[in-house]
Parts: sequence; C-alpha cells; structure tokens
Amino acid sequence: MPTYHVEMFEGRTVEQKRRLAEEITRVSVEVLGGSPEAVEVLITDVKRENWATGGKLWCDQK
Amino acid sequence: MPTYHVEMFEGRTVEQKRRLAEEITRVSVEVLGGSPEAVEVLITDVKRENWATGGKLWCDQK
Amino acid sequence: MPTYHVEMFEGRTVEQKRRLAEEITRVSVEVLGGSPEAVEVLITDVKRENWATGGKLWCDQK
Amino acid sequence: MPTYHVEMFEGRTVEQKRRLAEEITRVSVEVLGGSPEAVEVLITDVKRENWATGGKLWCDQK
Amino acid sequence: MPTYHVEMFEGRTVEQKRRLAEEITRVSVEVLGGSPEAVEVLITDVKRENWATGGKLWCDQK
Amino acid sequence: MPTYHVEMFEGRTVEQKRRLAEEITRVSVEVLGGSPEAVEVLITDVKRENWATGGKLWCDQK
Repeated sequence: MPTYHVEMFEGRTVEQKRRLAEEITRVSVEVLGGSPEAVEVLITDVKRENWATGGKLWCDQK
Repeated sequence: MPTYHVEMFEGRTVEQKRRLAEEITRVSVEVLGGSPEAVEVLITDVKRENWATGGKLWCDQK
Repeated sequence: MPTYHVEMFEGRTVEQKRRLAEEITRVSVEVLGGSPEAVEVLITDVKRENWATGGKLWCDQK
Repeated sequence: MPTYHVEMFEGRTVEQKRRLAEEITRVSVEVLGGSPEAVEVLITDVKRENWATGGKLWCDQK
Repeated sequence: MPTYHVEMFEGRTVEQKRRLAEEITRVSVEVLGGSPEAVEVLITDVKRENWATGGKLWCDQK
Repeated sequence: MPTYHVEMFEGRTVEQKRRLAEEITRVSVEVLGGSPEAVEVLITDVKRENWATGGKLWCDQK
C-alpha cells in the first residue's frame, strides 16, 4: 500500500507504462511517505468501445 | 462524476454498449442531477471462466 | 451479473439511491436482457476531498 | 454478496480458477455465513506489463 | 499479487475480518502458489443502502 | 480518462491528498499526454482492519 489502479485507453506502449509506474511510485513516496516496494500500480487498458463520456462511446467520437 | 463501472459477460455488441451508456447516463442525470458530460461509464467484458457464482465458474454452467 | 459500481459524491438521499438502483436495473435488463434478480448495484459515497478532476480536489472547487 | 474481485497475473489455468472460486466461496460462507449462491467471485487476468511493484513493471523483473 | 477486494455488508467483527484474511491468503497460496507475503486482501464495508439486488436496496429488504 | 483509483490507509491530511492529486495529474499528462481536465483521481481511505498483507490485518501489525 498504497495501491494505484489506472484505467486508460488501450494502445499505450510498454515504455509509457514503465515511466508511468516509476513516476506514480516516486510521487506517492514523496507525498505520502512509505517505501517504494510497498507501492503497487495496476493498469487497465480500456477499449474505446468500453468507455463512454456524456453518454457517448469513445469509439464513436472523432 | 458520477462514474459507473459495469462488469458483464463478454460478447455484447457495440450497439448494446452504445445504448447502455446512453441509458445509464440519462437515468443518472434524471435521478442525481448534474450534466451528462460529467458522467463516465466504463465497461468490463468478463470471460465466463472469470466469473463464479455459488462457487461455480459460469463456463461450467449450462 | 451484470454488476454496476457507482461512484458519486456523498450526500445523496436513500430515496435517490433507491430510484437509481431501480432505473439502472431496469435499463440493464432492457438493453442486455437477463433477469433483474441477477443485477447488482453497489454505490460508493465519495467525499469531495477524495475526488480530483484536472488536479484539483472537489472540496477546493467553488 | 459478498463479492470477491481477484487480480492475478494472466496465465492461470481454468482448473486453478475453478478451485480458487470453490475455495473462496467455501471460506467466505464458513467465516461470514450466508449462502454460497450469494457469493460472487470475479477474476481479472493482469498482464505483467500492467502490474508494477516498487516502481518496476513485472515484465521487467527476472 | 494476487490482490483480493472483498465487498461485504458492514457490521462484521474484526475477528471475522482477521479469519477471512487468513483463509483467503491460505487458499490463494494453496491454489495459485506464490508466497503469503505477496497476497493483499482489501475489505470494503458496504452499507445496506448502498447495495441493491434485483433493483431493491438491501436496507429495504426484510 | 485516464482515471486513477488510489487505495491508502486512512489518516492522510487534505493537504497530502491535494498534493497527491496534483502530482498524479501532472505525471499522467507528462507521460500519457492529454489534458489535465480529463484526469480523474479518486482516493479511498482504508481502515487498517480492512487491509491485510501476508494474511495479517494491518491493525494487528506493529
């Protein structure tokens, strides 16, 4: 702990995920204290057909 | 906000997801107020081997 | 199944939650089929200090 | 209810998922009471590139 | 990993939570392997007004 | 999107939550692109009796 669940559109590179995990862990320790080893980051790649904002699926948005 | 996470068996059509997102957003605004643009709907397609009820996986149920 | 997790600002009345659960269940069955008894709705009341959009906590927003 | 969400590395067999669902349902009823039919278990298979501990993605760890 | 999120009605004792965490961890290691130290169990106490099945809030059910 | 759900022990100050939301939003935009306004951060304050690691509740750990 703490645990971070990240939901984002699918299609990001492993390198982006690598950097995101590093940065979230760094700022987590910086702000909340604790050790980096206790920080978990879980990423969910979400298809655009599975995410709607304002009632519209993102696969239908330009 | 509000945010709706929907877990359902995989296999639904994009059209069903489209209608579900529209309807959830509509009833959300109707009951809770706020604007449609603030409503997020995230859908998770769950495999039947990943969902158990009463201790039985749904891929094992008739 | 399906299961709906709803995250919304704390402060809604039980009556609003009652109506929201009814409406989500109704539109779920209407769009996805299945029986109402299989539909679960779980609500999370979120404090404004625990929700940020655009980097700002909602307890800090007018 | 209760509902159990399990996040684990992808790659487990259906047989492991079958046993896990059975065992979680059994211990749930044993400890919390209630009927097995009310217990839901949902499994998420997580790619190693989507899980980081200590700031490192598991796909980068030996 | 794995991580178990448990949603259950509020009102369970700390002793029940203690036993549930022990048992889930035990069966997790038994079925999936891995070490107990890697297993996380997070419990959410859900008010009956925040959980609906079949469109009815559990605070309204006998 | 993206959406960040943070689970952490209860007891953090609003100021820590404020800084955490700012920092997560900043690194999210920096690594993934997109606009800050699209980034949502939701925090869950978890009681130590509701979080177990290695089968032990954190309220039982020194």
